[in-house]
Amino acid sequence: MLTIYREPVITLLARPQFLEPAHLAVQQKGEASEAERLAEFAGRLCYMSQHNPAGRTTAEYLGNILKQGHGSVFEHATYVLLFEGVSRSLTHELVRHRAGFGYSQLSQRYVDEGRAAFVMPPAIQGNLALEQAWEEQVTSAHEAYVHAVEGLMAQYSWVEDKIHRRKMAREAARSVLPNATETKIVVSGNVRAWRTMLELRLGEGAEREIRRAAVAALGVLRGESPALFGDFELYQAPDGEMAGRVGFHKV
Amino acid sequence: MLTIYREPVITLLARPQFLEPAHLAVQQKGEASEAERLAEFAGRLCYMSQHNPAGRTTAEYLGNILKQGHGSVFEHATYVLLFEGVSRSLTHELVRHRAGFGYSQLSQRYVDEGRAAFVMPPAIQGNLALEQAWEEQVTSAHEAYVHAVEGLMAQYSWVEDKIHRRKMAREAARSVLPNATETKIVVSGNVRAWRTMLELRLGEGAEREIRRAAVAALGVLRGESPALFGDFELYQAPDGEMAGRVGFHKV
Amino acid sequence: MLTIYREPVITLLARPQFLEPAHLAVQQKGEASEAERLAEFAGRLCYMSQHNPAGRTTAEYLGNILKQGHGSVFEHATYVLLFEGVSRSLTHELVRHRAGFGYSQLSQRYVDEGRAAFVMPPAIQGNLALEQAWEEQVTSAHEAYVHAVEGLMAQYSWVEDKIHRRKMAREAARSVLPNATETKIVVSGNVRAWRTMLELRLGEGAEREIRRAAVAALGVLRGESPALFGDFELYQAPDGEMAGRVGFHKV
Amino acid sequence: MLTIYREPVITLLARPQFLEPAHLAVQQKGEASEAERLAEFAGRLCYMSQHNPAGRTTAEYLGNILKQGHGSVFEHATYVLLFEGVSRSLTHELVRHRAGFGYSQLSQRYVDEGRAAFVMPPAIQGNLALEQAWEEQVTSAHEAYVHAVEGLMAQYSWVEDKIHRRKMAREAARSVLPNATETKIVVSGNVRAWRTMLELRLGEGAEREIRRAAVAALGVLRGESPALFGDFELYQAPDGEMAGRVGFHKV
Repeated sequence: MLTIYREPVITLLARPQFLEPAHLAVQQKGEASEAERLAEFAGRLCYMSQHNPAGRTTAEYLGNILKQGHGSVFEHATYVLLFEGVSRSLTHELVRHRAGFGYSQLSQRYVDEGRAAFVMPPAIQGNLALEQAWEEQVTSAHEAYVHAVEGLMAQYSWVEDKIHRRKMAREAARSVLPNATETKIVVSGNVRAWRTMLELRLGEGAEREIRRAAVAALGVLRGESPALFGDFELYQAPDGEMAGRVGFHKV
Repeated sequence: MLTIYREPVITLLARPQFLEPAHLAVQQKGEASEAERLAEFAGRLCYMSQHNPAGRTTAEYLGNILKQGHGSVFEHATYVLLFEGVSRSLTHELVRHRAGFGYSQLSQRYVDEGRAAFVMPPAIQGNLALEQAWEEQVTSAHEAYVHAVEGLMAQYSWVEDKIHRRKMAREAARSVLPNATETKIVVSGNVRAWRTMLELRLGEGAEREIRRAAVAALGVLRGESPALFGDFELYQAPDGEMAGRVGFHKV
Repeated sequence: MLTIYREPVITLLARPQFLEPAHLAVQQKGEASEAERLAEFAGRLCYMSQHNPAGRTTAEYLGNILKQGHGSVFEHATYVLLFEGVSRSLTHELVRHRAGFGYSQLSQRYVDEGRAAFVMPPAIQGNLALEQAWEEQVTSAHEAYVHAVEGLMAQYSWVEDKIHRRKMAREAARSVLPNATETKIVVSGNVRAWRTMLELRLGEGAEREIRRAAVAALGVLRGESPALFGDFELYQAPDGEMAGRVGFHKV
Repeated sequence: MLTIYREPVITLLARPQFLEPAHLAVQQKGEASEAERLAEFAGRLCYMSQHNPAGRTTAEYLGNILKQGHGSVFEHATYVLLFEGVSRSLTHELVRHRAGFGYSQLSQRYVDEGRAAFVMPPAIQGNLALEQAWEEQVTSAHEAYVHAVEGLMAQYSWVEDKIHRRKMAREAARSVLPNATETKIVVSGNVRAWRTMLELRLGEGAEREIRRAAVAALGVLRGESPALFGDFELYQAPDGEMAGRVGFHKV
């Protein structure tokens, strides 16, 4: 039985816990997350302005830094997200984001794709003829994978270590699995990296599945730290999918 | 008609051209490529040892730097290679190499996969039953792709810009294309980056297709600059595929 | 009155807070920090081995990953440290570590170096003749800085914005400040990045001041997460300074 | 006798040599450098548009890519520049540029600063009183350095290896050398990296010495590849120094 995902599922795995040193404590004002306070601390260290001469709230202070494009301040706070229900074509694009990101992804060489989960592209959802043809094709690909694993296990029967034999079989058999195969990936990124990724992947030019994932990631991140992600604006694009634009361009 | 690749094809696209400044010219000895002379120049600048007090050849000098692990000297010379005849599962792994690498890859959103080329995994090659089942499956996936493009073009008939309509259709239709789909990618990497990639991807633990590509890439790079890549050693691994090990570990 | 630092001061500013998703919860064993549990979670996701088939503790699991060199698992946990009492020559070396690091440093263009703090090199400490000559020189450099700021403020009296005028004066006047000038820097690094930095900077070949800072940073990091940094070993080097070596080489 | 630099000296050390594969040759039009042709080749590979359907010249094609912000195409062409006559405060800022850059810098631990070259800040040049005070201070710092080396060589007389003894002495003695001390650095950067660096360092907010170096670097790079750097515009800033702005913002 196939599992079919129609939406990405994004979960927060880690956020920074900030430990402020008393001797350099910021005269902080307003509500703020720990990530926001860490960013403010780092920004103020550059100028030794811990006494907050302009009496700004953390949100005002960080908004000003975003406006000035002093981006390195946003490299200290790291958020780790788990992406599930996303396709291997999405992650192939996603891992192209390098600066400030780290990844750990479910391996098709080690994990039995007998578990069989697939991601239906947004453009196909709702068009019943296309949905049916798509399901038939991924079902057939999945069966071909299972048969290929069997055939390769037989071919490699001389390999004594069973774990190694399975890896050899799976890494070749996965060749027939489609782009639509579901994968899971742990993505850690600092705030500057996330902002750059979001700016690019929320754009109307972005592929629909990754745009959907970016919208979901923005939801999580903005919930955590409004002052660091609150300048993004979402709207419905002509293709019916949500899209977004950034208030303060690439820092 | 399907095109089937059984081997990666690696082509050199660019090498460095070195322009030595006369006032800091190295007392250079022995045969050397321009990349090697650039690396020696950079290494000697750190110590202002252009007069080559030990009377070393370029190969001896660079061998010594490799041994000491003074890796930043190897970041100046960049080689750009074109990978063809490789699968999308290979490139999904390849682009995880970040530091020192840049990529430009054939886009499945823009290019018509009606051209239909696929890469047969090494483990399947020569096993006729597996080969036949594999070919049937990729043929069926390819047909499903072509039909899906047609169906999506009809669904998006309201989109006036035909280029945009095609992109919308292809990006969803490619969902059924297999990992085996052939792709092309321009890969630029500095010597330090290439050495790290080769060390990892030549190992026996590496997936067989990417190992094969690493062997081919090493062939090109070693032909260009023996002093920078000559410490790698190739041998036949138990699985019948070539593998390699490095003389001077990660610099 | 000069402030003279003889030791670096390293303070923990941030650690990860881990939020484990219930549906992929690891059958975790043994004591572990949140950073360690995050790393284990990411490692196990690649193999979908959350059920912990070998019944390993987190420390055993991570030790095994370190041994295998599966380094990307160590990119998710980020530690942010504050370095104080370090010289500008130390930070010039430190910021050469790029992959996985972010920095925010006290700016000599914006901060009044009238505050006058300097770092005495380890090799000079205890040699009274050298100490005295060193203090005289940094005192004279500091006075020259103060005079240069005054002279430049006069020269730039036409600049109306006083903040801008000061910046213009300070950025030129700092030219006479010595390498020994104390600076402060916020350094965020993921565990993989910290391990690479520590391996290089704990070595006997490392400059003594930065080695001392690496020893102090290791102390903080090892206190936080023994399983991630416990394989480093400290010993007294022939020059009298502590040095360290790594158990599991560069991952 | 002191050597005093009043201007940075920037020299081209390496450019890419492009080897176009016949089977994917671009229908190229117009004059173009090899770096430009490499970038066009990589860009066209993504779309398999080697036949140049719009009949664009290389300059038109690249201008369009710059406008669209498809920046990864600009990561393949690497230019290596030598910076001389720059201060250690300049290089401390410069090496903060990480993505796409590599560095090899003259080491104060290995090279005898008895050679004594210093960089006079732009703001001081022409103000005779300030110039004289500055020269006195760097002369005194240089003398203190020479004495400290002597004192430390004596202190370390127990170290048999003379090279090692010198390194120990120099690394501590350099503590009194000023920010103004001249250094040399090999800087390799891909076109995307250089463009980001130039955008930031040509701005009026940039420190004057590094702005001057950026103007000189732009001169070299624009001479090499007008289509890749021709959108930068130089003008005289209110402080009398040249500044620049970019036509196509960060790609």
